[in-house]
Amino acid sequence: MVSDKNIEKEKWIKQLLSPIREDLLSGAAELALQAIVVFQTILGSSNTTNVSVLKEELRLTAQELIDSQPAMASLFNLANAVLIAANKANTVVDVKNECQKALDDFERILCESVARIADIAINLMPPGEMVFAYSFSSTVVSCLLNARAKGRYFRVACTESRPSLEGRKLAARLAAGGIEVISTFDSAMAMLLPNCGVAFMGCDSVGRPGIVNKSGSYLLALACHEMKIPLYALSDTTKFVDDERVFEFENHQRPEEEVWEDTPTGVTILNRQFELIPFELITGLITEKGLFNKSDLEKYISALSIPKDLQTVSS
Amino acid sequence: MVSDKNIEKEKWIKQLLSPIREDLLSGAAELALQAIVVFQTILGSSNTTNVSVLKEELRLTAQELIDSQPAMASLFNLANAVLIAANKANTVVDVKNECQKALDDFERILCESVARIADIAINLMPPGEMVFAYSFSSTVVSCLLNARAKGRYFRVACTESRPSLEGRKLAARLAAGGIEVISTFDSAMAMLLPNCGVAFMGCDSVGRPGIVNKSGSYLLALACHEMKIPLYALSDTTKFVDDERVFEFENHQRPEEEVWEDTPTGVTILNRQFELIPFELITGLITEKGLFNKSDLEKYISALSIPKDLQTVSS
Repeated sequence: MVSDKNIEKEKWIKQLLSPIREDLLSGAAELALQAIVVFQTILGSSNTTNVSVLKEELRLTAQELIDSQPAMASLFNLANAVLIAANKANTVVDVKNECQKALDDFERILCESVARIADIAINLMPPGEMVFAYSFSSTVVSCLLNARAKGRYFRVACTESRPSLEGRKLAARLAAGGIEVISTFDSAMAMLLPNCGVAFMGCDSVGRPGIVNKSGSYLLALACHEMKIPLYALSDTTKFVDDERVFEFENHQRPEEEVWEDTPTGVTILNRQFELIPFELITGLITEKGLFNKSDLEKYISALSIPKDLQTVSS
Repeated sequence: MVSDKNIEKEKWIKQLLSPIREDLLSGAAELALQAIVVFQTILGSSNTTNVSVLKEELRLTAQELIDSQPAMASLFNLANAVLIAANKANTVVDVKNECQKALDDFERILCESVARIADIAINLMPPGEMVFAYSFSSTVVSCLLNARAKGRYFRVACTESRPSLEGRKLAARLAAGGIEVISTFDSAMAMLLPNCGVAFMGCDSVGRPGIVNKSGSYLLALACHEMKIPLYALSDTTKFVDDERVFEFENHQRPEEEVWEDTPTGVTILNRQFELIPFELITGLITEKGLFNKSDLEKYISALSIPKDLQTVSS
């Protein structure tokens, strides 16, 4: 029987995670940092003395978190890491300690990776040439601001990224950091690309078949391929997922109204915000472990382990 | 010296043409029909007895018309046809008669062509398969409604066409005609294409290097090419232009605010609404004279003649 207390708890967890669910503008790394704070809040405020109750709270939070942004592999892997840590312990104190350690490790990887990725990215930017950046990725923004801080002068070309317009957030963030930006609407990206020496995009997840990223990334990749402009995806290894997980984004349609508010009768709206870009269409994947091609992924992806609790999650 | 009367006349011509200048939703054929009415208004209301004054009014109108929508070849060729007709005559009555004849001929080509193009297009639609249609083209809409009227059942996939959203006009027009439509945002077009058996697009102009059409057509063509989906451009021969004219659209940037109203400091907006799609990326060009490939164009384009008055027009 589900008690009133459990329903209250579930409601509270949903409430804690709702800013992440509603956030269509932030990149994966930003959302993962927010999710770490949510887990810390759950751990800090739980006053149960029953280890099963605490583990169930963490399982519920993990499930809700994954469901809030199903394409974001960092959130899935963060939830994994917390549940794997919790499963190792048998007392409330040990569960809290193990989970806090897992959260600290995850945060360290997120933060340290950006600097390593930036070091690789700067060497792939042809001096003086315009850089294309797609959608919003905090990793891409950090890399570009870092290059600027190191004295590199370059312009960035980008597009708005309908329907959530997170490309405008990228443009504003870079402009505020002293980088000159040229932006246009999404379908006009092919007009800016011929002026660019390299293109960067973030990732929401990385698997054997390719990169999952914001809708429009596939067209960008096709155009870069056709125009022989190197295109790099930037991702730390917290976004790596196995074959079961990588197509999860396909099951999620967002509200029609986000695309067209007063759709006429007879018109149906497709609002899928992510798509897969096959590895064949990108030049390389920049991670904190180095510049990867498709075959470099294998050892990382085959080493992924998913706790039983999450294997049955239909998010 | 420019008289007050001339300034008044010029203002009036600009006023007559301003609905065409402001219209970002209509296809080329629709705008050409409107422009015919403008020329008829000029001819009908002119009460001058001086043939030079009348010719100058027509030249001004032609120049203004071309300037109002520089990518629309039908308008350029309509203006041409009127000036060529006017140049043949030496009296006010003869100018009016010759011009009216030219306008009637142009209108007949516009109207008859649609039916012929529709007859070719229907045979290129694989029965039962979804059709992709890009941006707004009255020719494409007519062809699809015609196929539906002939008992063909099919769904149409399209996108909104930022920033003017004329793709929504296409969706609404087709849905009102009983065709089921699936629409999405522009950058997600590659998600709908794999379900389509053929793709159609209109044209704003056709020249030796390729087709000029709404921004985004290049990405559509690349994606169709990659996915092996036949892509046909639909255009009557009134849109054929010579090499000097075909890149004219590149000189025209529309207001930044149409793309992003409150652009932050440091961000510049590119708002170019047309782009060139090389012939290599399209399967064929459907005209009222038949299904054309690149080499079929030559005899039509080399036969084009442009009156001296317009050769110096810097629109």
